[in-house]
Amino acid sequence: MNPASNSLALLTDLYELTMAYGYWKCGGAERHAAFHLFFRTSPFQGGYVIAAGLGPVLDFLRSFRFNPDDIEYLGTIVGNDGRPLFEPAFLQYLAELELTLEVDAIPEGTVVFPHEPLLRVCGPILQCQLIETALLNQINYQSLVATKASRVVMAADGDAVLEFGLRRAQGIDGGLTASRAAFIGGCAATSNVLAGKRFGIPVKGTHAHSWVMSFDSEQEAFQAYADAMPNNCVFLVDTYDTLQGVRHAVQVGRRLRRSGHRMVGIRLDSGDLAWLSIEARKILDAAGFEDAVIVASNDLDERLIQSLKLQGATITVWGVGTKLVTAYDQPALGGVYKLGAIQEDGGQWQPRIKVSEQLIKTSTPGIQQVRRYLDNDGMAIADMIFNMLQPTPETCTVVDFLDTTHQTEFDANVEFVDLLQPMLRSGKFVGESPPLNEIRSRTMTQLQQFHRTVLRLDNPHRYRVGLERSLHDLKSQLVRDARQRNKAESTT
Amino acid sequence: MNPASNSLALLTDLYELTMAYGYWKCGGAERHAAFHLFFRTSPFQGGYVIAAGLGPVLDFLRSFRFNPDDIEYLGTIVGNDGRPLFEPAFLQYLAELELTLEVDAIPEGTVVFPHEPLLRVCGPILQCQLIETALLNQINYQSLVATKASRVVMAADGDAVLEFGLRRAQGIDGGLTASRAAFIGGCAATSNVLAGKRFGIPVKGTHAHSWVMSFDSEQEAFQAYADAMPNNCVFLVDTYDTLQGVRHAVQVGRRLRRSGHRMVGIRLDSGDLAWLSIEARKILDAAGFEDAVIVASNDLDERLIQSLKLQGATITVWGVGTKLVTAYDQPALGGVYKLGAIQEDGGQWQPRIKVSEQLIKTSTPGIQQVRRYLDNDGMAIADMIFNMLQPTPETCTVVDFLDTTHQTEFDANVEFVDLLQPMLRSGKFVGESPPLNEIRSRTMTQLQQFHRTVLRLDNPHRYRVGLERSLHDLKSQLVRDARQRNKAESTT
Repeated sequence: MNPASNSLALLTDLYELTMAYGYWKCGGAERHAAFHLFFRTSPFQGGYVIAAGLGPVLDFLRSFRFNPDDIEYLGTIVGNDGRPLFEPAFLQYLAELELTLEVDAIPEGTVVFPHEPLLRVCGPILQCQLIETALLNQINYQSLVATKASRVVMAADGDAVLEFGLRRAQGIDGGLTASRAAFIGGCAATSNVLAGKRFGIPVKGTHAHSWVMSFDSEQEAFQAYADAMPNNCVFLVDTYDTLQGVRHAVQVGRRLRRSGHRMVGIRLDSGDLAWLSIEARKILDAAGFEDAVIVASNDLDERLIQSLKLQGATITVWGVGTKLVTAYDQPALGGVYKLGAIQEDGGQWQPRIKVSEQLIKTSTPGIQQVRRYLDNDGMAIADMIFNMLQPTPETCTVVDFLDTTHQTEFDANVEFVDLLQPMLRSGKFVGESPPLNEIRSRTMTQLQQFHRTVLRLDNPHRYRVGLERSLHDLKSQLVRDARQRNKAESTT
Repeated sequence: MNPASNSLALLTDLYELTMAYGYWKCGGAERHAAFHLFFRTSPFQGGYVIAAGLGPVLDFLRSFRFNPDDIEYLGTIVGNDGRPLFEPAFLQYLAELELTLEVDAIPEGTVVFPHEPLLRVCGPILQCQLIETALLNQINYQSLVATKASRVVMAADGDAVLEFGLRRAQGIDGGLTASRAAFIGGCAATSNVLAGKRFGIPVKGTHAHSWVMSFDSEQEAFQAYADAMPNNCVFLVDTYDTLQGVRHAVQVGRRLRRSGHRMVGIRLDSGDLAWLSIEARKILDAAGFEDAVIVASNDLDERLIQSLKLQGATITVWGVGTKLVTAYDQPALGGVYKLGAIQEDGGQWQPRIKVSEQLIKTSTPGIQQVRRYLDNDGMAIADMIFNMLQPTPETCTVVDFLDTTHQTEFDANVEFVDLLQPMLRSGKFVGESPPLNEIRSRTMTQLQQFHRTVLRLDNPHRYRVGLERSLHDLKSQLVRDARQRNKAESTT
């Protein structure tokens, strides 16, 4: 759970270890390689992703080591012949292993797009592989939830969004890291107390149906709650009959007012939220509770919130749980981690690709960086992925990733920012993920750099992302080479 | 991460703590209540769920306590007035709190149905509420994944299913607990090494595309792998050209054979798996590798596996990842935790319900147990939920949950088993979840107690689950009472 205190070096697919063993056996463990972690399509029919998960990744790397009991366990794994899979000298190598990697990352809270490396890992190939699975696990899920949260917050259009997802989250840190990522994406608070403690996120909550059911009547239940916490009263009104519940809340609200307190509001958790909120608003206003807020929950997501607003719902605080923390309509981002280049014996870097019948699944070679061009108002114009092994020309031509006929030129005067920033150099930490509040602010600032059409929920305007021309040419050449090699082989 | 060593008492929604405070303030904290954890509909368009998550729940309960730093944190939470939400005497109460609950549970690996309590928690209402969120978090997710796994295993129809989901899982224990739950549901092994270490699940894995890409040619890569691990060779053949890759595997397989080893098989990870597996099989068989297995992966789930089998795919080992561990087509079970009864001052239990306009959302009152009736062959006939506060008659009438006109009588001679088993009595552990292998075997045995029509993937035959007649009558009466009370109030 807490990567800072416990090494999670075994949080990996076995094949990373068998490959590590293979590299070690053939003398290639220390050969340097460059890997990139990226996703291929934006989730939820949208056009962007909010990068998240780097903080926990750095915690993971900081604590990375194989403990004696890890080594002992690895010694018990057997192959298909029933004999130990790993030989003792290799296990000894792992026991002594310290990371010496170079890691660069796009900061959390950055708006990113398909094919852009969120992380670049360079160094001994054995080490690059050993950390792959944990990196994917963290970045995939947290970026997904941060993205979902930013969509929900956008739909709420200025209203507060509270994250209530723990009970439906996928495991303990499916809950914990979801709360962190949801806050990065723009949520105002969480119900998850442990996330509050661990990450400093504001926590919110009042009462459940069971509170009301445990008393003989709803009025009695509301009154008892008001007696206990007169300044924390958001009454859940739908245990028996919603509008009747609103009237009961009003009665207790009046008593609160007489004793110098203020009813904060009511919460709706079932039924027709549009109609009920409108009727509840009338009752509250008629009773002089114009300032009482109406909170709503019940399987909400960005589309339902948009629809409720269109219907004139008077809800101003949105509790979002299941649909947010599980990223219900697309519960995995599908990020991958691909080899871009490898060092030859002479020290020369060789670019590598994985080809595929589907163009989108053909990987990009090289050691990559992402350059974001900005206009005079600081708005993002286009992103260019370039290969640090190739010289970057004065005037860059960006060849669009999906439509290679679309090429844009940027000269050296156009303002830009390179997104990948150094985090580790030779295994030493040279960068870090800032405090959560700063990350959340970055998300807000970043979103303002993109036109609303790029961010909209469906059928977004596609923001241009492309390869620098010489990288595009290199990739094309490598694809042709691979196909020719296969053709030559299959005819011999 | 490891609930046994770290208390996770703060793994809760804040409202459980504000309610706890409310009970404490109004002198009702020690009043006994009975809660039931259940779900309302089976996931994935199916007809059943495999109960899972009890082991981790018991670990959570075993370590439950508020640590000094938890208490300190709770003291910093403020209400809407900016003042501390909880008073010091209450925090002191929490600091000294030890659970004295009675907990009953349906064992992991049991086939269960909507509305059946998977857990029953009785005892001081404050304690019942404090553990709610963590129980839901664990049971919801793990039962969901165990159910998904059982469906995938059913579709694989005797072939081995390997769980490969860690990189796409929702967080660290979204991965870890997913591996445990997938094994309960019938998976044969996992790629997740930490899950292997922690739970004793067999681990499997060979190599990725990056292994192949890091060498100058595919043959060289396969040969290097074979040199390192001659008895663990499942070659991933689709880095460049799949069928060419199969031929390269054959070449290395021949060399392995000459040196007294055996190529285990090949793995396909992209492209048309039906066609490629058929063609690969021909190449392997023609070269005398009839015993080489064909493993497949790539976003597989139960429906794709079924479709591939219908198309004559020759795959016999299925690697299933993303779609399994995220329960992709329904990533949340939606289990709830509802109050069924509460003790009056005199010690008398009072049944309680939550009514709803939707009948399915009206809760069931009482202190419940689930009785499963079996025929002479040990096959399950029907399940009856009954109220332990009401006498159970000699001849039980089961009123179907959804169709109350369907009533079935069972006399005392019909064999039955009561599913909820004691786990805690007065806070002491009297039951436990058995070793994982036993749970997995239980799943297999349990599934055999149900007709295939009940278990099929879509439009399953509905297995009868009902309320014992007197419980049914009590519930109807309470619904009528609640409605009448509302009507009376709204006219006054």
